[in-house]
Amino acid sequence: MRTVFWEENQLKMIDQRILPGRLEILAYTDHKSVAQAIRDMVVRGAPAIGAAAAFGLALAGYESASTSTPDLLADLRAASNVLKSARPTAVNLAWALDRVMRVASSANGNADDLRAAVLDEAQRIADEDVEINKRMGEHGAALINDGDTIIHHCNTGALATVDWGTALGVIRTAHEQGKRIHVLVDETRPRLQGSRLTAWELEQYGIPYEIISDNMAGYFLKAGKAQKCLVGSDRTAANGDVANKIGTYMLALAAHDNGVPFYPVVPISTIDLSLASGDLIPIEERDPQEVLGLEFMGERVTPPNAKARNIAFDVTPHRLITGIVTENGVIYPPFEINLKKAVLGQ
Amino acid sequence: MRTVFWEENQLKMIDQRILPGRLEILAYTDHKSVAQAIRDMVVRGAPAIGAAAAFGLALAGYESASTSTPDLLADLRAASNVLKSARPTAVNLAWALDRVMRVASSANGNADDLRAAVLDEAQRIADEDVEINKRMGEHGAALINDGDTIIHHCNTGALATVDWGTALGVIRTAHEQGKRIHVLVDETRPRLQGSRLTAWELEQYGIPYEIISDNMAGYFLKAGKAQKCLVGSDRTAANGDVANKIGTYMLALAAHDNGVPFYPVVPISTIDLSLASGDLIPIEERDPQEVLGLEFMGERVTPPNAKARNIAFDVTPHRLITGIVTENGVIYPPFEINLKKAVLGQ
Repeated sequence: MRTVFWEENQLKMIDQRILPGRLEILAYTDHKSVAQAIRDMVVRGAPAIGAAAAFGLALAGYESASTSTPDLLADLRAASNVLKSARPTAVNLAWALDRVMRVASSANGNADDLRAAVLDEAQRIADEDVEINKRMGEHGAALINDGDTIIHHCNTGALATVDWGTALGVIRTAHEQGKRIHVLVDETRPRLQGSRLTAWELEQYGIPYEIISDNMAGYFLKAGKAQKCLVGSDRTAANGDVANKIGTYMLALAAHDNGVPFYPVVPISTIDLSLASGDLIPIEERDPQEVLGLEFMGERVTPPNAKARNIAFDVTPHRLITGIVTENGVIYPPFEINLKKAVLGQ
Repeated sequence: MRTVFWEENQLKMIDQRILPGRLEILAYTDHKSVAQAIRDMVVRGAPAIGAAAAFGLALAGYESASTSTPDLLADLRAASNVLKSARPTAVNLAWALDRVMRVASSANGNADDLRAAVLDEAQRIADEDVEINKRMGEHGAALINDGDTIIHHCNTGALATVDWGTALGVIRTAHEQGKRIHVLVDETRPRLQGSRLTAWELEQYGIPYEIISDNMAGYFLKAGKAQKCLVGSDRTAANGDVANKIGTYMLALAAHDNGVPFYPVVPISTIDLSLASGDLIPIEERDPQEVLGLEFMGERVTPPNAKARNIAFDVTPHRLITGIVTENGVIYPPFEINLKKAVLGQ
């Protein structure tokens, strides 16, 4: 089963908020609900968000009563803006919507042809995502040695993509190649994508793992007990700075301080050459309740009036990055030159 | 009220496991229960543990039926070993017990005189702790500027000591001096001493704060939104390496990477000159349930069979430390020379 898929004229998605307790599929028939689902993290992970938004645009096509292509295009453009504003950091959202809108703008035929073209392109984005992940898996797995312990942050698996995964896809490929791998799973506060989703996926794949709190990674790296760090990326700037789930920067610092290779696994669609550096990437701040709403062993954790901040992403400077795994191969420094080649050489 | 105190021939302690939900005092009448309370983190924080263990030894004196001083001394020695083994990393535990045993060994008089001497010394350790914290508060507060935002890890306040606090004591002193301070409170996974205990204390003192997940500290430091980092220490080696609550090392890396001063606040009693470097400090590993036993917004977080690791402390290398605040002043590099002076020059 895919994380995000089209079935019976509906967008269907695994509800990632309630895993691993329950596996439920939610169905969507309008683009505003899809935007809300992206905002609420029913679906999360840059590639999965991109595919969900593309299908959301397909829904907007069927929602629209417009009979002329210019009217329908205007409706799609409005829907695209609604979807685009759901979350600011992952560039896939805008990338997927812009790609579908380009196809829509140049489509031939009547309004129904345009609706079909939009859905086709959304489906193509979803199908390509799986294929891209498999290619990243192959390139990345070549970096992994038999016996490696790998620290992994957030969730970058099948659930973060349409299927297979980015950083976790590399781990899956290496595992399928017969390499013995142990994963230290950063629990990934505040939304706990590691202990909820990555642990759940690794259980299914039969890959040995142990959950750690994010702040333990430094201990394992310093003790020589981890040989690689693998993470995803929500947006990579032209200079190789990588925006990813909060905590990635501190993990990269700890890897760098101990000479442990640090690899973001990054579909080309998440590389934003329009931004010279990571400082320009917009960083989402979310509801403090995600930090405060925690119970520990049956007790509410924080005082009644506690205040919190909830920064959802951070930027890892390229100087801390060993190499960037893409579907076109592993990119090494100087990133400014080599990323451009990888993106434009497609 | 003190966190740890002697009343009606009992050791009384605030139960830190159930704060901030409830404020309850537990009473202890035997040393084995005290050792268990230290292990279970009813009481935590190096100075508070030291005082609790000293009073535990006083209880052991009253538990013993021995009428001769050599027999009583043997009973005390056995009790000291039980208490000492409760937790390995904080050196105060051994320091306080050794100090009380030295007094016991040289006490004059009969067995009851010896019992009284042990209790007196335990009380002296508790009283001195408050006074030492106030002195550290004064030395440390001189480093704090009006308007500073300070990142604080774990709990180092009144609850981690007999009263006042170490790193949080510095913050309290600066606040009482009229300096406007904002505290970013690391929630401090896995036991959440920050979001449970430090937030609760700061509410009481009227010091503005916001809770962050530990992995957000790097974001705030990189964004220039924090001017100091203050932490405690469970044991400091002769070269200035500091063992402290897990996550301290990654915080220190992020501070260092952004040129933000990083100060451990360290009673002289937690400096262990017998260890040349932090690599020799024993690091406690605790029950994985502390990592796994989390509920988030009403849902159990981890899959049923999830595995975890739970490293309780890490070591921050002295190269990442700006200065070490003690009751005898702020110690700067070279720590190897200057720590020795501070300890032996007492």
